[in-house]
Amino acid sequence: MEKIKVGILGSTGSVGQKFIQLLTSHPYFEITALTASEKSAGIAYGERVNWIQDTILDKKIANIKIQNSIPNIDCQVVFSGLDSSVAGEIETDFASMGYHVISNSKNHRWDENVPLLIPEVNHEHLGLINHQQSLGKIVTNPNCSTIGLVMALKPLNDRFGISEFNVVTMQALSGAGYPGVSSLKIIDNVIPFIDGEEEKIEKEPLKILSKYDGNKLIFPHINISAQCNRVNVIDGHIELIQIRLIDKVKESEVIDAWDTFRSIPQELRLPMAPQKPLYYFDSEELPQPRILRNIDKGMAVSIGRLRKCNIFDYKFVILSHNTIRGAAGGAILSAELMYEKGLFN
Amino acid sequence: MEKIKVGILGSTGSVGQKFIQLLTSHPYFEITALTASEKSAGIAYGERVNWIQDTILDKKIANIKIQNSIPNIDCQVVFSGLDSSVAGEIETDFASMGYHVISNSKNHRWDENVPLLIPEVNHEHLGLINHQQSLGKIVTNPNCSTIGLVMALKPLNDRFGISEFNVVTMQALSGAGYPGVSSLKIIDNVIPFIDGEEEKIEKEPLKILSKYDGNKLIFPHINISAQCNRVNVIDGHIELIQIRLIDKVKESEVIDAWDTFRSIPQELRLPMAPQKPLYYFDSEELPQPRILRNIDKGMAVSIGRLRKCNIFDYKFVILSHNTIRGAAGGAILSAELMYEKGLFN
Amino acid sequence: MEKIKVGILGSTGSVGQKFIQLLTSHPYFEITALTASEKSAGIAYGERVNWIQDTILDKKIANIKIQNSIPNIDCQVVFSGLDSSVAGEIETDFASMGYHVISNSKNHRWDENVPLLIPEVNHEHLGLINHQQSLGKIVTNPNCSTIGLVMALKPLNDRFGISEFNVVTMQALSGAGYPGVSSLKIIDNVIPFIDGEEEKIEKEPLKILSKYDGNKLIFPHINISAQCNRVNVIDGHIELIQIRLIDKVKESEVIDAWDTFRSIPQELRLPMAPQKPLYYFDSEELPQPRILRNIDKGMAVSIGRLRKCNIFDYKFVILSHNTIRGAAGGAILSAELMYEKGLFN
Amino acid sequence: MEKIKVGILGSTGSVGQKFIQLLTSHPYFEITALTASEKSAGIAYGERVNWIQDTILDKKIANIKIQNSIPNIDCQVVFSGLDSSVAGEIETDFASMGYHVISNSKNHRWDENVPLLIPEVNHEHLGLINHQQSLGKIVTNPNCSTIGLVMALKPLNDRFGISEFNVVTMQALSGAGYPGVSSLKIIDNVIPFIDGEEEKIEKEPLKILSKYDGNKLIFPHINISAQCNRVNVIDGHIELIQIRLIDKVKESEVIDAWDTFRSIPQELRLPMAPQKPLYYFDSEELPQPRILRNIDKGMAVSIGRLRKCNIFDYKFVILSHNTIRGAAGGAILSAELMYEKGLFN
Repeated sequence: MEKIKVGILGSTGSVGQKFIQLLTSHPYFEITALTASEKSAGIAYGERVNWIQDTILDKKIANIKIQNSIPNIDCQVVFSGLDSSVAGEIETDFASMGYHVISNSKNHRWDENVPLLIPEVNHEHLGLINHQQSLGKIVTNPNCSTIGLVMALKPLNDRFGISEFNVVTMQALSGAGYPGVSSLKIIDNVIPFIDGEEEKIEKEPLKILSKYDGNKLIFPHINISAQCNRVNVIDGHIELIQIRLIDKVKESEVIDAWDTFRSIPQELRLPMAPQKPLYYFDSEELPQPRILRNIDKGMAVSIGRLRKCNIFDYKFVILSHNTIRGAAGGAILSAELMYEKGLFN
Repeated sequence: MEKIKVGILGSTGSVGQKFIQLLTSHPYFEITALTASEKSAGIAYGERVNWIQDTILDKKIANIKIQNSIPNIDCQVVFSGLDSSVAGEIETDFASMGYHVISNSKNHRWDENVPLLIPEVNHEHLGLINHQQSLGKIVTNPNCSTIGLVMALKPLNDRFGISEFNVVTMQALSGAGYPGVSSLKIIDNVIPFIDGEEEKIEKEPLKILSKYDGNKLIFPHINISAQCNRVNVIDGHIELIQIRLIDKVKESEVIDAWDTFRSIPQELRLPMAPQKPLYYFDSEELPQPRILRNIDKGMAVSIGRLRKCNIFDYKFVILSHNTIRGAAGGAILSAELMYEKGLFN
Repeated sequence: MEKIKVGILGSTGSVGQKFIQLLTSHPYFEITALTASEKSAGIAYGERVNWIQDTILDKKIANIKIQNSIPNIDCQVVFSGLDSSVAGEIETDFASMGYHVISNSKNHRWDENVPLLIPEVNHEHLGLINHQQSLGKIVTNPNCSTIGLVMALKPLNDRFGISEFNVVTMQALSGAGYPGVSSLKIIDNVIPFIDGEEEKIEKEPLKILSKYDGNKLIFPHINISAQCNRVNVIDGHIELIQIRLIDKVKESEVIDAWDTFRSIPQELRLPMAPQKPLYYFDSEELPQPRILRNIDKGMAVSIGRLRKCNIFDYKFVILSHNTIRGAAGGAILSAELMYEKGLFN
Repeated sequence: MEKIKVGILGSTGSVGQKFIQLLTSHPYFEITALTASEKSAGIAYGERVNWIQDTILDKKIANIKIQNSIPNIDCQVVFSGLDSSVAGEIETDFASMGYHVISNSKNHRWDENVPLLIPEVNHEHLGLINHQQSLGKIVTNPNCSTIGLVMALKPLNDRFGISEFNVVTMQALSGAGYPGVSSLKIIDNVIPFIDGEEEKIEKEPLKILSKYDGNKLIFPHINISAQCNRVNVIDGHIELIQIRLIDKVKESEVIDAWDTFRSIPQELRLPMAPQKPLYYFDSEELPQPRILRNIDKGMAVSIGRLRKCNIFDYKFVILSHNTIRGAAGGAILSAELMYEKGLFN
């Protein structure tokens, strides 16, 4: 079987590096092009990148010459880890030239026919791309905090209905990219603010949890409040969720909804798919980023501490790996789903 | 003027050390006795303590011989930093022998006639101690997370009425005492659980915000939900608060309530009192523990990010120094108030 | 093939946990017994342990009932992660009852016929155990800082001769066990002292680098000075080494000695053996703990920054994983070597 | 008495901020001008700076309009915290226009008649500035690691003679400026490399410890080797020093040399001068950055762990605050000395 050639836009950044780490020896995809800003063009990747992953960079990748981010590179699909200051236009250019674009940037998330895709949650939204005018299609990842959140909410919304939820995040530093947050700002500290993040979390779940009627998305009525914080953790976003349900249910029913949740990626056994999307832990002290962020290849969401709330119905804690499930790994899973659905033929 | 002799119970622990740091050269009080567990008795404090403060231990204090925690020590008032596993009985013993006890432990907080005192908030509760039977009286500090929280809520409750609030804490490591949290548990991590803490925060504000009718406390009706987390910060608890008010008011009115708040400690110019109990900051990135925890001697509460909430009326962020305002400094302020009210004569 | 039954002494500690993590599904060994202090006996391991590893505890292991550390447990070989305050006597007891003991504790390291074993460096020292009187034999691991150090020095000593070396360590927190170092002591800090560590590093390399004449060890003459520091890193000891060689050689010869170094574990393809014991990196910024500690299963030593020194001949930097190569993994490799040499028959 | 007007070049950087923090309400100097890069010119300082100090920015300073770094600002003396990529030329321009320049940058450190000044160590080198041709004179601070090191060595060199020393640093993050080191690079990590740092430490002590014959500097013969590391500490450089002395002396004599060391800044009671330049601590665990970096206003050097060395004569550990003693505070002390010597008249 011949592999699909893929390129990575913005390959030297934090998300770009994670794409490379996860796509090295992928069964469907083969990295054939890496792009970065103009000043890096022509330089071998290994000489240019400030590699911050915890594995050694593959030598074949290190030798690839970086190219400028313009749509004349040798591949069929591009994964975009571009900064949002430039991603919008570049991704549009690639799509118009026939490349399929799987983007981790926010720029096209609210374009009308662009799905905000989490394969376990709203795979049917992929139908939207037929309405896109360009030859190449654009699919986007939601925000890194939104992904784990909506995955944990999905089976509850399906079974019991959600009318309202409150979320507080404690987000890892890798979410801010590289170099991102200066060490002088975060050691022995918490920053109770992340620019633009609360707005995304209050809005994106509504699009993701929409019903697709074959033509357009029909948004649900859910009231959302979010508060976002940066904490001194490398990888893994913790989120505290309080929820009001339409049906009044027992704790055991909530846990059962999580434990039994499976979806298309599991049925298709997609290479990047976790065996179980959601893991519930009984221990009072879980989930914790360092212990659980890498569970099931970093693609599953860990949940714990479900308990009654004095204000809402329930409160609980979730954890997901922000640069794997919440960024590069999630985008690769989307591409795998598209591949299996024949969208790359 | 002769100083009041004071002793510190549990002097080698984290709170005990902070009492020593703050009482060295205090205008009203003079440390004349230090106690710890039996195995330390007879040893010079400086040889026994694992000093973790960021200033050098005073030499006169270092030479004091540690005594057993039994009520035959040379002083009139004791500050208790005892562990709750032993504090209950020992503090009762000291009070029954005529020592006044200012305690940071939880054991007596819910005794009927023991005030849970924050001098700026409920100084009139001191009247309760007249109903205590023992010769010496017991006054307690609320939990370290409760103190900053209730200080920020007090002027809002007085002016606008509070019907409900939701709080999420990101608490510093010094709140767990010494040695407390192992470095192996918290580096590159968050622990979304603190044993017993959520229960305290959901309960203590009700006692503190009670009306004292000269005889007993009359509790308010406020609905509270708390979620507590340990983060990788040495000192300074961050709390995210969402609030529902009885009167509907503008943001500027809320900020004004904080900015103009003054109370008895400020009027009496108590040595440990902050000039202003509450500081509101406009900057989106404030408050942060490392920048603001020491403001006004570590005795003031910093507030920021007031904004409308989709679920509650408002949300905002507070910070207070957990071992100064939230523990040793708060207890000393209570003692200063009692001193000025003539309760130590 | 039937697996050898193994027990882990001191199984709830930091090294004990690492033994469990590494021995779960080992091709030669099967965990059949776990011991801890008396108060834990009879309790299922999963309920007792404060698991701090970054993978989830295996369920079968979690169900094993902890036993007291006395030599009536069902296994042939024991791995000891006991604290040195008790390890000496307990290990002697086990050996005298016929158990083979692979110990990570310091107690028996200087017993006359006990090898201080690094399989790549001094496998021939295993001959010493024939002189041990007990039915079961004791083999010890060197100190966690000594292991990486001596591995890096071994090929240089063999080829060029070492007359003197100076070493400074920056050691990870897991080396102090669990709970070990309080978070309050190490955040935003360095502790330039580790009790007893400098003495071990100045002494152990001499035993390890001894020649074994079939009867006893003949110690080399090497002058050593060590300075040890605790830094805010979870796993992975960095060591700065300055060296005076007997032969004057070029940098390329030093690097070649490292790059081509292979030994018995590589020849026998022992399961825990790294493919290469030593990796030299050209990059000025390597080695770093977080990037390289897990290289080759955490069993290889990373080396970098070889350069001339104004005082010694050369200086360079090494890194090794202190709880894998420097403790549990090293001990398992020793046991694998003993297994292949038929010493467990 | 009228205060001398001073400006701060590069005022928004980490050293610039520290200059502001330390010069606010200084008895001799008054800040009248702040400069930064062209794009900040005209903006109020408080709106432009990313303030990372642990105290709140003074309001009067916050209102000062930033100016471009060209020599037409209203002041007599400038403190330079400029980046070395631009400092050389700008500082020359200011000196040629008659401003006295006290620089923390490396650019002019090796100019023939520019003193590399530590007031306690080589105040007589100030004589060199008479040989400078420009109207305004340039005086430089040594590197932040060199300052503490040479202060600790000075009394030993004077009394016993130093022939050789070996130094290993564990340096704080603030030494790399702001934003400096990314949090993603240093959490749970050590970086055993700092660009250009080892070279500075191997060279600068020779100039500072030179004899000034009234005309030029006569360099001593001391053999130096340095190894530099970045560790996860905000402020405070630790240095491990091994030393070979010309006279063979007892430990008590070494400690006495440190304890009794005083110099010109102490005699003149300069405002920024520490009461004692050097503090020796008996405790095995000292010095540590978080406990001792602020001793004596952050201007003194803490020393500990003096012990015999197997290779050199002695080894010991020092700590100094890198942005106070090692940068802004040191430069201010130099300016105070110049002021008292009438060099600003």
